[in-house]
Amino acid sequence: MYVLHEIARLTGTELNGDPNAEVQRAAPFDIAQEGDITYAENPSYLTRVEECKATAIIVPSGVDAPDKNLLITVKPRLAFARAIQLLHKKIYSGSGVSPDLIAGEGTVFGAELSISPRVTIGRECTIGDRVTLYPGVVIGDRCLIGDDSVLHANVSVYEDCEIGKRVIIHAGAVVGSDGFSFAPDEEGKQVKMLQLGRVRIEDDCEIGSNCAIDRGAFGDTILRRGVKLDNLIQVGHHCEIGEDTVVAALTGFSGGTRVGRKCVIAGQVGTNQHITIGDGAVITGQAGVTKNVKPGAVVGGTIPAQEINSWRRSQVIYSKLPELVERVRKLEEAAGLKAKK
Amino acid sequence: MYVLHEIARLTGTELNGDPNAEVQRAAPFDIAQEGDITYAENPSYLTRVEECKATAIIVPSGVDAPDKNLLITVKPRLAFARAIQLLHKKIYSGSGVSPDLIAGEGTVFGAELSISPRVTIGRECTIGDRVTLYPGVVIGDRCLIGDDSVLHANVSVYEDCEIGKRVIIHAGAVVGSDGFSFAPDEEGKQVKMLQLGRVRIEDDCEIGSNCAIDRGAFGDTILRRGVKLDNLIQVGHHCEIGEDTVVAALTGFSGGTRVGRKCVIAGQVGTNQHITIGDGAVITGQAGVTKNVKPGAVVGGTIPAQEINSWRRSQVIYSKLPELVERVRKLEEAAGLKAKK
Amino acid sequence: MYVLHEIARLTGTELNGDPNAEVQRAAPFDIAQEGDITYAENPSYLTRVEECKATAIIVPSGVDAPDKNLLITVKPRLAFARAIQLLHKKIYSGSGVSPDLIAGEGTVFGAELSISPRVTIGRECTIGDRVTLYPGVVIGDRCLIGDDSVLHANVSVYEDCEIGKRVIIHAGAVVGSDGFSFAPDEEGKQVKMLQLGRVRIEDDCEIGSNCAIDRGAFGDTILRRGVKLDNLIQVGHHCEIGEDTVVAALTGFSGGTRVGRKCVIAGQVGTNQHITIGDGAVITGQAGVTKNVKPGAVVGGTIPAQEINSWRRSQVIYSKLPELVERVRKLEEAAGLKAKK
Repeated sequence: MYVLHEIARLTGTELNGDPNAEVQRAAPFDIAQEGDITYAENPSYLTRVEECKATAIIVPSGVDAPDKNLLITVKPRLAFARAIQLLHKKIYSGSGVSPDLIAGEGTVFGAELSISPRVTIGRECTIGDRVTLYPGVVIGDRCLIGDDSVLHANVSVYEDCEIGKRVIIHAGAVVGSDGFSFAPDEEGKQVKMLQLGRVRIEDDCEIGSNCAIDRGAFGDTILRRGVKLDNLIQVGHHCEIGEDTVVAALTGFSGGTRVGRKCVIAGQVGTNQHITIGDGAVITGQAGVTKNVKPGAVVGGTIPAQEINSWRRSQVIYSKLPELVERVRKLEEAAGLKAKK
Repeated sequence: MYVLHEIARLTGTELNGDPNAEVQRAAPFDIAQEGDITYAENPSYLTRVEECKATAIIVPSGVDAPDKNLLITVKPRLAFARAIQLLHKKIYSGSGVSPDLIAGEGTVFGAELSISPRVTIGRECTIGDRVTLYPGVVIGDRCLIGDDSVLHANVSVYEDCEIGKRVIIHAGAVVGSDGFSFAPDEEGKQVKMLQLGRVRIEDDCEIGSNCAIDRGAFGDTILRRGVKLDNLIQVGHHCEIGEDTVVAALTGFSGGTRVGRKCVIAGQVGTNQHITIGDGAVITGQAGVTKNVKPGAVVGGTIPAQEINSWRRSQVIYSKLPELVERVRKLEEAAGLKAKK
Repeated sequence: MYVLHEIARLTGTELNGDPNAEVQRAAPFDIAQEGDITYAENPSYLTRVEECKATAIIVPSGVDAPDKNLLITVKPRLAFARAIQLLHKKIYSGSGVSPDLIAGEGTVFGAELSISPRVTIGRECTIGDRVTLYPGVVIGDRCLIGDDSVLHANVSVYEDCEIGKRVIIHAGAVVGSDGFSFAPDEEGKQVKMLQLGRVRIEDDCEIGSNCAIDRGAFGDTILRRGVKLDNLIQVGHHCEIGEDTVVAALTGFSGGTRVGRKCVIAGQVGTNQHITIGDGAVITGQAGVTKNVKPGAVVGGTIPAQEINSWRRSQVIYSKLPELVERVRKLEEAAGLKAKK
C-alpha cells in the first residue's frame, strides 16, 4: 500500500489531488476500482477520466477532472509501469539451494541464491548473487550468470556463454546452440563449419520463451544491455542487437545481422544475412529486410521491405489492381488498340 | 478387433455389406489391406473404391461398389477419425507416481495418476485424476491440472495457471510466461510492465510442441474449450481464442487478439494487437491480419490481409504486372506521350 | 597444430608456399594473425590477400600473392570448413554414464557413452556407441539412437522414433509429437485423428534448437541422410525431406510436404499440404509455396511463391505502382476520358 504523495515522488509525477489517498493495486482503466491506480493516455480513455472509479489516475497534462486524484506526467504509461512495480513487485528473498543441485568442479556461487530442484550446472561456472534457477535449467561449462538474473524452467545454456545482471530468460529458451553454417562438398554433402564463438547477453536483457540464440562461428553473438526479446525468436550466429531494442515474437535474424540501439522490430520479421539496421529504426510486422536500414527509418511491407510510406502507397494501389486494369482496358478501347483481355 | 455392425453403430454410419466382417486396423486408402478400414472422400479416391483392398471403406452416399463393404455417412473423415480411435486408442491405465516426484506443500493429487520420473510441481497445486506427466515437466505454484490431461516431456507451466480436463500439451510448450510489455523511460530504457494475469486453458484443448502462451498483464489469456494449436505458436498476453478454433504452426497472436469460435487459422499468420476475428472466420497462410475480421469472413494474402477473393484478383494481376506496364507503354506510344521507359 | 603440407593433403588443396609453416587456429580473414589459417573467396577479400596476416590463406586458383602461403582449391569455403575441423574438433572421449540414469526395461546400450545426469530413457530402446545425451534429455519407449549421435539439453523424443548415426539434435527440439489433424463433428467439435506413424531421422542430420518434428498419421515423417535444419522449424506429419537439403530458421512444412535432395530452403518459408519440391530447388525467404516446385527451380516472393525472376519483375513494378497509376491518369487525360482520381 502506498499513499499518493509517495507514489507521485516514486513515479516522478505531479499530484493533483489528495496526497494521503491510499492505493493497493494497479488495474486497467476499465476495471479499476476504489483502491486502484490506473492510467489514461489514449484519447478514448482521456475523454472518460471522470467516469473512472480508480482512486488515482495517471494522465498527461491538460486533463480537467477536478473530482479525481490525478498524477500528471508526460509519460503516463511509463509512470504506470513504475506504479505497478511499486505495488506488485515481490521483494526478492533467496529460497536457498536445492540439495540435489548438480554442479561441476570449479563452479563458484554467489550469495542468497534461489536454486530449485533438478538444476544441472557444468564446470568452472560463476553464478552471481541472488540468481534464480528454476527446475530443469541446464547450464554448460564455463558459463557466467550475473547477479539477480532469473532462468525459468527448462532453459538450456550451452558452454562458454556469458549472461549479465538482472537478465530474465523465459522457459524453454536456448542460448548458445551452434550457428547454422555448412559448406557442400564435391558430392553435395554438407560439411559443418564448427562454431567456435560464444553468446554474450548483457545486463537487463529479457529473452522470451522458446527463443533460440546461436553462438558465433568465430566471434560472439551479442545482445547489448536492455535488449528485450519476445517468444520464439531466432538470433543467428554472430548477430549483434543494440541496447534497448525490442523485438516481437517469431522474428528471425539471419547470421551476422547488426541491429542498432532503440530499434523496434515487430513480429515475424526476417532479415538477410550480414545486413545492418540503424539505431532507432522501426520494422513493421512480417517485413523481409533484404538490405541495410538507415538509422531512424521506418520500413515495412513484405519482402523486400520498403520505406513504409512508399510501401503503403503501392499497397493501396495493389488492393485495387483490378480497377487499374479496367482503366487501361478502356484506354485501349478508346485508342482502338486491341485489348489483351 | 471390431465387426462391421459394431463399427457402424459406434461411428454413426450406415453399413452396406457384411455385418460380421472383421477389421483390426485403420489405414490410408492407398495402402489399406484385408483387415483394414479406410475412407474415401475426395473424387480421386471415390472413383477408385472398387480397387481398394480394405475390408471396409467409409464413403459418402452415392458410391456404387456392390462387392465392397461400405460404411455410408455424410462425414467420412469424421467417421474415420472415430474408427481410428476405436481400433487404436490405448485404454488408459495409471502407471503410478514415480517415487522421485517433487511437489510443494499443499499440493493435492487425484487418483490413478501416471507421473513419470523427474517431474517437479510447486505448492498448492491441484492435480486431477488420471493425469499423465512425462519426465521434465515443471509446474509452478498454485496451478490446476484437470482430469485426464497429459503434459508431455519438458513442458513448463508457470505459477497460477489453470488447465482443464482432457487437455494435451506437447513437449517443450510453455504456459504462463510473461507477456511482452515495456514502457521506455526518459533515456529509452525499457521498464517492464509486470504481468499480473494468468493463463486459463479450458477442457479438451491441445497445444503443440514448443508453443509459447503468455500470461495476461492484468486479466487472463484464455483458450476456450476445444482449441487446437499446432506447434511453435505464440499466444500473446490477454489473447482469447474461441471454442473449437484450430490454428496451424508458427502463427503468432499479438497481445489482446480476440479470436472467435470455430475459426480456422492457417500457418505463419500474424495479427495486430487488440483486433477481433469473428466466429467461423478463415485466415489463410502467412496472412498479416491488421484489422478486425467479420464472422465467417475468409481473409488472406500477405500484409495487410484482405478478403480472399479481392486479394486473389489483385494477386493474379500482380503476377503479370510486366504485361500491364507494356500495355500502358503501347498506349503512351499510340497517344504520342513520351513513355518513361 | 598442423604444418601446411599436412593441411594441404587433408583438405584436398594445392600448396603454394612453405610446406613446414605451422598453423594452430582457423580465423576469419579480417582478424587472422600469425599462426592462423583463413580463406578468401569473395572478390572483396581476394583483392586484399596481400594484406592478410594469416600464415596460410585458402584461395581459388588465379590469385597472385607470391609472399603468401596459399592453399589453392575450387572450393575454398569447403576447404576452410575442413581445416576448422582439423584444428578445432574435439576428439571424442566418452565421459561415462551418470549413475542417476533412468532407463526402462529392455533398453540396451552401446560402448563409450557420454550420458549426463538427469537423462530419462524409456523401455526397449537401443542406444548406440559413443552417444552423447545432455541433461534433461527424455527419450520415449522403443526408440533407436544411432552411434555417435548427440542430443543436447532438454531434447524430447517421443516413443518409437528412429534416429540415425552422427545425428546432432540441439537443445529443446522435439521429435515425434503428434501431427496436427482433426475432423470436426456434427457440432463443430474437433475429433482427433490419432497419429500412428513415427519419425525417422537418418544418418548425419542436424536439427536446430526448439524445432518440432511431428510423427506421421500412418506412415513416417522422414528426414533423409544429411538433412540440416536450423532452429525453430516445424516439420508436419508425414513430411519427407531429401538428402543434404538445408532449411533455415522458422520455416514450416505442412503435413505431407515432400522436399527433394540438395534443396536450399531459406527462413520463414511455408508450404501447403501435400506439395512436392523437386531436387535441387531453391526457395527464398518468407515464400509461401502453394504448389509443386520443379527440380532445380528457384522460387520466391511472398504467397503464392513464383519463379524468382518473374516475381522480381513484378516486384520492381509493385514498388513503383504510384508512377504507373500516374501514367494511366495522363493517358486518360490525353484521351479525354474521365480519370477516376
